Amino acid sequence: MAGSTHPANTGRSVETARRKLTLPPGISLHQFERAMDDLRSFMGTEHIEINDGPLNDGDYYHTALSHDSYSVMERDYFIASAVVSPGSTADVQAIVRWANKWKIPLWPVSIGRNLGYGGAAPRVPGSVVMNMGLRMNQILNVDEHTATCVLQPGVTYVGLYEHLKKIGLGDKLLIDVPDLGGGSVMGNALDRGVGYTPMGDHWGNHCGMEVVLPNGEVVRTGMDALPGSNCGQSYQHNFGPSVDGIFSQASNGIVTRMGFWLMPNPGGMLPFMITFKHRDDLIDAVDTLRPMMLSRLLGNIPSLRLGMWDAATYGSKSDYWPEHGGRPVPEDIEDRILEQEDLGAWVFYGALYGPDSITAPTWEVVKSKFAHIKDVRFQLREDVPERSYLHDRAAVFAGVPTWRELDWHRWVPNAGELFFAPISPVSGVDAKKQVGMCKARCIEYGFDYLGTFYIAAREMHHIVTILFDRAKPEERRRAEKLLRVLIDDAAKLGYGEYRTHIALGDQVAGTYNWNNNALMRLNETIKDALDPNGIMQPGRSGVWPKSYRGQGWELDGVNPPKVVRPSDGKL
Amino acid sequence: MAGSTHPANTGRSVETARRKLTLPPGISLHQFERAMDDLRSFMGTEHIEINDGPLNDGDYYHTALSHDSYSVMERDYFIASAVVSPGSTADVQAIVRWANKWKIPLWPVSIGRNLGYGGAAPRVPGSVVMNMGLRMNQILNVDEHTATCVLQPGVTYVGLYEHLKKIGLGDKLLIDVPDLGGGSVMGNALDRGVGYTPMGDHWGNHCGMEVVLPNGEVVRTGMDALPGSNCGQSYQHNFGPSVDGIFSQASNGIVTRMGFWLMPNPGGMLPFMITFKHRDDLIDAVDTLRPMMLSRLLGNIPSLRLGMWDAATYGSKSDYWPEHGGRPVPEDIEDRILEQEDLGAWVFYGALYGPDSITAPTWEVVKSKFAHIKDVRFQLREDVPERSYLHDRAAVFAGVPTWRELDWHRWVPNAGELFFAPISPVSGVDAKKQVGMCKARCIEYGFDYLGTFYIAAREMHHIVTILFDRAKPEERRRAEKLLRVLIDDAAKLGYGEYRTHIALGDQVAGTYNWNNNALMRLNETIKDALDPNGIMQPGRSGVWPKSYRGQGWELDGVNPPKVVRPSDGKL
Repeated sequence: MAGSTHPANTGRSVETARRKLTLPPGISLHQFERAMDDLRSFMGTEHIEINDGPLNDGDYYHTALSHDSYSVMERDYFIASAVVSPGSTADVQAIVRWANKWKIPLWPVSIGRNLGYGGAAPRVPGSVVMNMGLRMNQILNVDEHTATCVLQPGVTYVGLYEHLKKIGLGDKLLIDVPDLGGGSVMGNALDRGVGYTPMGDHWGNHCGMEVVLPNGEVVRTGMDALPGSNCGQSYQHNFGPSVDGIFSQASNGIVTRMGFWLMPNPGGMLPFMITFKHRDDLIDAVDTLRPMMLSRLLGNIPSLRLGMWDAATYGSKSDYWPEHGGRPVPEDIEDRILEQEDLGAWVFYGALYGPDSITAPTWEVVKSKFAHIKDVRFQLREDVPERSYLHDRAAVFAGVPTWRELDWHRWVPNAGELFFAPISPVSGVDAKKQVGMCKARCIEYGFDYLGTFYIAAREMHHIVTILFDRAKPEERRRAEKLLRVLIDDAAKLGYGEYRTHIALGDQVAGTYNWNNNALMRLNETIKDALDPNGIMQPGRSGVWPKSYRGQGWELDGVNPPKVVRPSDGKL
Repeated sequence: MAGSTHPANTGRSVETARRKLTLPPGISLHQFERAMDDLRSFMGTEHIEINDGPLNDGDYYHTALSHDSYSVMERDYFIASAVVSPGSTADVQAIVRWANKWKIPLWPVSIGRNLGYGGAAPRVPGSVVMNMGLRMNQILNVDEHTATCVLQPGVTYVGLYEHLKKIGLGDKLLIDVPDLGGGSVMGNALDRGVGYTPMGDHWGNHCGMEVVLPNGEVVRTGMDALPGSNCGQSYQHNFGPSVDGIFSQASNGIVTRMGFWLMPNPGGMLPFMITFKHRDDLIDAVDTLRPMMLSRLLGNIPSLRLGMWDAATYGSKSDYWPEHGGRPVPEDIEDRILEQEDLGAWVFYGALYGPDSITAPTWEVVKSKFAHIKDVRFQLREDVPERSYLHDRAAVFAGVPTWRELDWHRWVPNAGELFFAPISPVSGVDAKKQVGMCKARCIEYGFDYLGTFYIAAREMHHIVTILFDRAKPEERRRAEKLLRVLIDDAAKLGYGEYRTHIALGDQVAGTYNWNNNALMRLNETIKDALDPNGIMQPGRSGVWPKSYRGQGWELDGVNPPKVVRPSDGKL
């Protein structure tokens, strides 16, 4: 796979020979051509791209919309037949009606940069990807008084951040950014992603949606369902059922605008770093954190990171250990690397919000709580060198988009990533159990364990990244197998994932199977009622519309994946 | 209506002559008798009551389950044909399957004490009320470490409060109570009620549900959908769509258990009262509050109450103004009453949470923010007499259930109440506009305006109570008319209600009509998919199942209400 690029490098990409098209299931090339003519009749030609050219993996900045650029399955499995870019809600409605007419599955994406979860790639090969973000990228409203905004799908964190600065509210309203600033604010919230300020629960801080349903109707939820409402971004509900949730991690509609709560400037911030030297400090660190999170002494979403993950932002595995030969780093080498980088086994990044008069004494309280842990170290920005990751976390804690997180992709060459993301209680025993299980399995499958806990009041997102060399198909297949084993292991211990790669959605959904899959059957009932033709994101989060069920579409890593190829040459 | 009781008095009730039974729609007496025999065959006889006896209005402590004891419509309109009390989730499933078999509508209630919204009364006359709280009243779990609990429908605030004390956690975990402590924790959350601590958003602080669907299946949502999960009350979502919202203010299922987040003891609390002397201070007070709420300087849900509403807790209208003759209190008499009770036009009740070392300086900041308002007065508990309402608000702020709110029911004799509950932005102009509109209409219809704002970060629940004499049918009809006018007035100004009495659900739902009632059509699609026989709470929140739509069931205050009476005598 010569020429494949490191995601942190921009501008270059892989070009392959002209390819055969992957058609939507059950659609002949002739039907597809007619359907595309029909689509062009109302969308014009310039906003439609047929995906029969070379597959460019792109990179973070030039995201591939045609396929899964990290290729967890075969490179041309999660692949679009075409990409269409609507310019308005009316366009979206028209495209949805078109899809119903031709029975062609749609896969809307906002920006498509959730690369560890499948990027822009559709679950069903040959789906038509809707590039929602390309043209629908307006900030429709910012309200300083209520600290709210209304966004279209294409608004990125960096876009919103720059806009607030431009209109003079940059120092009045803070946004909450995830690890990387280039994603869609809306897309991240719909996938229930998190950030790190007190507004880090992105889904929890949304307010009001406009959704195009699978039948082409458009609905507004929350107070904006009342025409002329001036409370659309003030209150999250309408009278009667709250339906928003059925559009998160879901395939029940396409969100075309969404309101969000922003954070008023708290008047100051004190970011800090606490280093725990020993591996087993994890238990004590988490149990010490729990009451502080519960009582909101720490009011944001801090993170407890494996020291080695921090090390990975400073250098590659080959830098640290040239003779690794593809093996996972053993603990003695880890110790040497952590020593070299002045890191501990675990590193906690947090921030206190408010004026100095409040954060300074609170910092003393925080320190006192952790002081009993042997060899613990407390550092502020002024205590660390310029290259320290603390400075980047400080930016993220202040709502400033960064790209530093891309650095750890250099850990292995040609890095593709897969995230394993179980929820854990804020409990040392649980954290230890999850880390133990994950680390043992990672080593068994020949990977390094790289984990972080993102900590809310009562739960932690334990994010484990599996980095594999995309140039080595065997490694990629091994990574998938590891994920499948981890999902099963976790379920046996009572842990479930909050989110997963599209390749693993069926399996993860299958672990939420209480009472003979009652939740899935409920999801299917709602899905079938809203999307009788099954055109909207079939297979998203493991929910399949009626026409796909029992047809072998589920991916289990054992049975061969189902895919439809054209029988009569390229378009 | 001699003998009707004041709700604050206990134990007495109205007894009428034996009545004819109101049957479920489309069910003959013969069918009903057979259906009841069938019900008894698996529920036994002692948990079923046929509602053909006298209608006892009861009171707050002895809540009527047979009908709307405040009788907003005719006293026997919102009325049950029978009341059944399940003892387990399996019972609930069996009853739901029974209802599908006989096509008899069910109306589950937890405790039935939301009296200003219809109490336990079913929307469709002749429904079978399910008294969920009578036997399913267990506290299934309390977890000190995560500050969570799992409850059955019958657990009241006072029950949970007493339980925490009993198990020695009374000083470690605080609950959040609404104005009255006798309601169901679950029922209040499902109706999206609010309380006054930092956990005042009851729906927002739930975590995990068990729901019996209209087809009799039982589903668990959130992490408890994963068998053996230990994160059921830690994280609010499962993988895939979040369905919880479609069971709030909704008729899509019966919740049989529900998890809640509790508040760890914050180490202290400073309740306070700020009195604003002049009516027009409302604008400045709210605008001063807004940044404090947004920044969480005030982190709970405080309230800004009309001084006259406070006065109503100290005495009745006749006490203050014996010659009122049923007229609304004019402003000069108001001024006299407020003077007499040492109150202002508006009274703000708030609380600061944390140790004294934090709350004392914060209180100074709060005072400084309001200091510019003419004649403003700041009071702590030690500054007010023993009868002051501040002491009761202080209890509520501390999570201690109280009953003081019942006192203002004495404002008029035989008080029935109706709540008008629009959402307002936290904006002085909006608050003033809503108060102006409500007050003018109240006076026009011969009622006193009694309003309170419950204040969250970005919105206020403006709660207007209309108190009417239940012994005077004309007054009751006038109150209903007033509500209908207010709902329309508010909608024209862009304001919508968060909740309403069952008599007004159709009208309120009708104001959320953006894009030709797109939201209602979505709700109906979901409803029909989950409840094809339309047996679950038809008409709740204005959502009617297919078989009821277009049959004249909607209540608009103009067309006569539809009701089915038995043709062949009593049972």
